[in-house]
Amino acid sequence: MLENDLYLKAHRGEQIPRFPVWVMRQAGRILPEYRALRAKLKGFKELVETPHLAAEVTVQPIDRLDVDAAILFSDILVVPDAMGLKYEMVEQIGPFFTETIRSTQDLKKLDQGMDVKDRLSYVFETIRITQLELRNRVPLIGFAGAPWTIFCYMVEGKGSKTFSEAKKMIYSDPVLAHELLNRITEFTIAYMKEQQNSGVDALQLFDSWAGILGKEQYAEFAIPYVKKIAESFLNFPFTVFSKGAYASMPQLATLPCTALGLDWNMEFDDIRDLVGETKTLQGNLDPCLLYADKKTIEKETKKLLESFKSSRHIVNLGHGVYPDVDFEHVQVFINTVKNYETKFA
Amino acid sequence: MLENDLYLKAHRGEQIPRFPVWVMRQAGRILPEYRALRAKLKGFKELVETPHLAAEVTVQPIDRLDVDAAILFSDILVVPDAMGLKYEMVEQIGPFFTETIRSTQDLKKLDQGMDVKDRLSYVFETIRITQLELRNRVPLIGFAGAPWTIFCYMVEGKGSKTFSEAKKMIYSDPVLAHELLNRITEFTIAYMKEQQNSGVDALQLFDSWAGILGKEQYAEFAIPYVKKIAESFLNFPFTVFSKGAYASMPQLATLPCTALGLDWNMEFDDIRDLVGETKTLQGNLDPCLLYADKKTIEKETKKLLESFKSSRHIVNLGHGVYPDVDFEHVQVFINTVKNYETKFA
Repeated sequence: MLENDLYLKAHRGEQIPRFPVWVMRQAGRILPEYRALRAKLKGFKELVETPHLAAEVTVQPIDRLDVDAAILFSDILVVPDAMGLKYEMVEQIGPFFTETIRSTQDLKKLDQGMDVKDRLSYVFETIRITQLELRNRVPLIGFAGAPWTIFCYMVEGKGSKTFSEAKKMIYSDPVLAHELLNRITEFTIAYMKEQQNSGVDALQLFDSWAGILGKEQYAEFAIPYVKKIAESFLNFPFTVFSKGAYASMPQLATLPCTALGLDWNMEFDDIRDLVGETKTLQGNLDPCLLYADKKTIEKETKKLLESFKSSRHIVNLGHGVYPDVDFEHVQVFINTVKNYETKFA
Repeated sequence: MLENDLYLKAHRGEQIPRFPVWVMRQAGRILPEYRALRAKLKGFKELVETPHLAAEVTVQPIDRLDVDAAILFSDILVVPDAMGLKYEMVEQIGPFFTETIRSTQDLKKLDQGMDVKDRLSYVFETIRITQLELRNRVPLIGFAGAPWTIFCYMVEGKGSKTFSEAKKMIYSDPVLAHELLNRITEFTIAYMKEQQNSGVDALQLFDSWAGILGKEQYAEFAIPYVKKIAESFLNFPFTVFSKGAYASMPQLATLPCTALGLDWNMEFDDIRDLVGETKTLQGNLDPCLLYADKKTIEKETKKLLESFKSSRHIVNLGHGVYPDVDFEHVQVFINTVKNYETKFA
């Protein structure tokens, strides 16, 4: 049994004495102990692919920040990597794929019939070690990138503001786009199932590039795949975070998941009207607020908490924490949430 | 008198036989004649700062694409440049400022009491030459960056996905942020007034980085400055394009401008409900659609036109055209709009 299961209770809509809080990218460069470990390694991928180190990094924010959930330290790009498109993480630049998918012919670059257990064994081993090290203190969240976001990287081959190569394909060859999205979806379901088998307590799907699609395109090229994945994890705590998909919130509100993530541009009131009490909402403090002085952080965090009209909330930032934020500022945010008694208890 | 004043009539809400159309970034790399001219020059800034060349490039899309308006070929960053923060345009990378504003002390880097007529004489000369070359065929649109967007570059010093340095300042030193925003606003009003004096027929304000601010921050650090500028151009065709500011549309709808630009994630129906018949709406085809085949472009453009519930529309993309788009595809978009008879005429 977990010592602290607030996060899971919030997913289930159970009564909670206070709102649970964790921070996207809490396992990372904001922590000095992470930077110390990282400095000894060749690169980011070495850390992701070495289970005892990835587990150590996953647990660091629990020890240091005392958050209500741990999230697996990994990368959404392990999926295309395992499917056959290898990537490198270039310092200061980001991910880079030497091969991309731009034509039907290119689909041959992808491996077929690969065994997810084998390909991503390092992730599942990380989960098992992490659970030992967490000693039932808090739940562990597993995750994957949503198919549309993974598709963006597999077609574009690198980060981009517009992902115009990826968007080009949905207009110029929608059949190929759906074929690739289907393959990503199948692999992602198998991957998340195996995360579940390895012991994660919850799952989150990150659709980081949702915002570059219009409502109709998101409805055609993203939501059906997210839905298929969510349907594979019914009755399990499952969060969908579609960054920037404002126009699609009415449709996202009907997904069979237990929680929706909100970015800092989304309004809780509007989304609550859409989901009622059927879902938990997660988010959404502006990550830049953590650059402010501690008093401002406390004030703005309280304002966010006061605005909640339901107990079905998990508090987080509206995006990953920026790596140059002082972790003491992150701590002020976390403590403010933990010291706040909800009026719903 | 203008031969084709559809664009201006649409601003005024007058009856029009068809919707006017132009394309953001129509003067640029999509045109072979632009690339030919550009290849002979040292760099982008040389083109911006040489009036007869900038005028030539401004007129090119009128000759080639037969759009309903010309837009001045220039750069929003001429404003910080004229205020004292010089920038370079680095090939493949984008703008780079050697100096930035991060503290009150840094404000001293800005020049004081500069004469906009003198500092930006090359822009006003471009406008005068362009009007001669346009020979009253279509209206000429002048433009500037909105203060928030210019602020982003002056603080960050370069392009960025998050502009976290700029956002850091609004939380950590809001007084300094407002001081800088005020200075940008004053200079921008003087700049746009002088564009008007030099002969532009309309003005547009580009708030390219609106989308990185939440609703409250946009209400505090952006809208008051946009409003102040718009109030300086009452009874003149004036468009405000706040890219990504979905949550702020109710407030933007009350601005004293004649038109609002919409990006491709915004829904015309929703915005029309907000503005009624008080404003013209401009946009918003997904720029990536122009990568599709010509039949798809025609079909999707017609779908957009069919969706209009008012005659107060100017058709455009929801963002600047991507430079690698085939200009013949842009032509299909333009022709489809021009051949479409509105049901409102």
